Amino acid sequence: MTAKLHCFGESGHSYKAALAMALTGYDWQPVFVDFFNGACRREPFLSLNPMGECPVFEEDGEVLTQSGVILHRIARRTGRLFGAPGDEEEVWRWVLWDNHKFSGQIGVTRFLMNFLAPERRPAEVIAFQQGRLRAACRVLEGHLKGRDWIAGRDVTVADLSCASYLFYPEPFGFTRSDWPEIDRWLSGLQSLPGWKHPYDLMPGNPADRA
Amino acid sequence: MTAKLHCFGESGHSYKAALAMALTGYDWQPVFVDFFNGACRREPFLSLNPMGECPVFEEDGEVLTQSGVILHRIARRTGRLFGAPGDEEEVWRWVLWDNHKFSGQIGVTRFLMNFLAPERRPAEVIAFQQGRLRAACRVLEGHLKGRDWIAGRDVTVADLSCASYLFYPEPFGFTRSDWPEIDRWLSGLQSLPGWKHPYDLMPGNPADRA
Repeated sequence: MTAKLHCFGESGHSYKAALAMALTGYDWQPVFVDFFNGACRREPFLSLNPMGECPVFEEDGEVLTQSGVILHRIARRTGRLFGAPGDEEEVWRWVLWDNHKFSGQIGVTRFLMNFLAPERRPAEVIAFQQGRLRAACRVLEGHLKGRDWIAGRDVTVADLSCASYLFYPEPFGFTRSDWPEIDRWLSGLQSLPGWKHPYDLMPGNPADRA
Repeated sequence: MTAKLHCFGESGHSYKAALAMALTGYDWQPVFVDFFNGACRREPFLSLNPMGECPVFEEDGEVLTQSGVILHRIARRTGRLFGAPGDEEEVWRWVLWDNHKFSGQIGVTRFLMNFLAPERRPAEVIAFQQGRLRAACRVLEGHLKGRDWIAGRDVTVADLSCASYLFYPEPFGFTRSDWPEIDRWLSGLQSLPGWKHPYDLMPGNPADRA
């Protein structure tokens, strides 16, 4: 049965799952969530996911949330993006790091800098988050030296998790050319058959609201 | 062979792993990391963990980092704290949520409010983080209604991950009595055989530096 991904184009966490399905030729369709009009904070969305977050993945009557869990489900079902036997802990290590230190920072910073009314943007918070983001970029840049992919020899869900926000055009304190190893790795992802930009994979983007 | 946990008492992420080992009777010993004198930002620590974070788990010549990965290793080795068959995705879902939305916020907020010199504490950042923490507490409080444990019928690593910072005495914007379901759940954890306070499990605490 066709899987559903409740998502919106601007959601980098949703893009992780959408991209995994695009790369593996998964049978899925997006369901638009009107995040910017508060849909995640009210019913019926909260019954679907009391955490109040996108993405939500529905398949065969089952509901899953948290991009890291959905990514692993897609990998398990398709037998791809998993890495080799023995890579599992290394894959999870980077998915966790991403949630805690990388996408976790970026999602908030990008929201504050682009999707809040200019007069409500908290300058001190943005500067603080950008400092943390630079520290995280240094970790990832160092890790990618001499490596094509984050964990093991092949592309895995760890790559998709860490990369997702970096494909968006809105500024959040990251300039791709400042980080040559990250830049090379992102180019590697973009050259995979099936890769698509987030705004081409999921409904909703800033132009709709302009 | 006795496992080593590179850690320090104030590290809530380390406490997750230390508590899992305490509850399962694991053969382990702590190795003190002098975080407050910069040990995580220089060698030899960075060679052990280029992410620059505690905890680091060493066993039989293998090195693991990220508390969520270490927790799952301990669960797998002991056959405990895993939940029932079929609980795995639900356990991971809350471990990820914790890293992203709960401990991830708390660790930073507690650091800024307690371990930075008073004149360097960024008031706007602290207020912002506390707002996000209250939103996360509402999610957890709602989830725990009618439940003894976060995932499935038994205590799992998801409980240890989400609870760890809440046992610390330093203020970070959480008052246990404000959240009756969380309070009841924490009492349940504290009554498990083997439970210990973080400052009784790991070396280093604020009193040492007073």
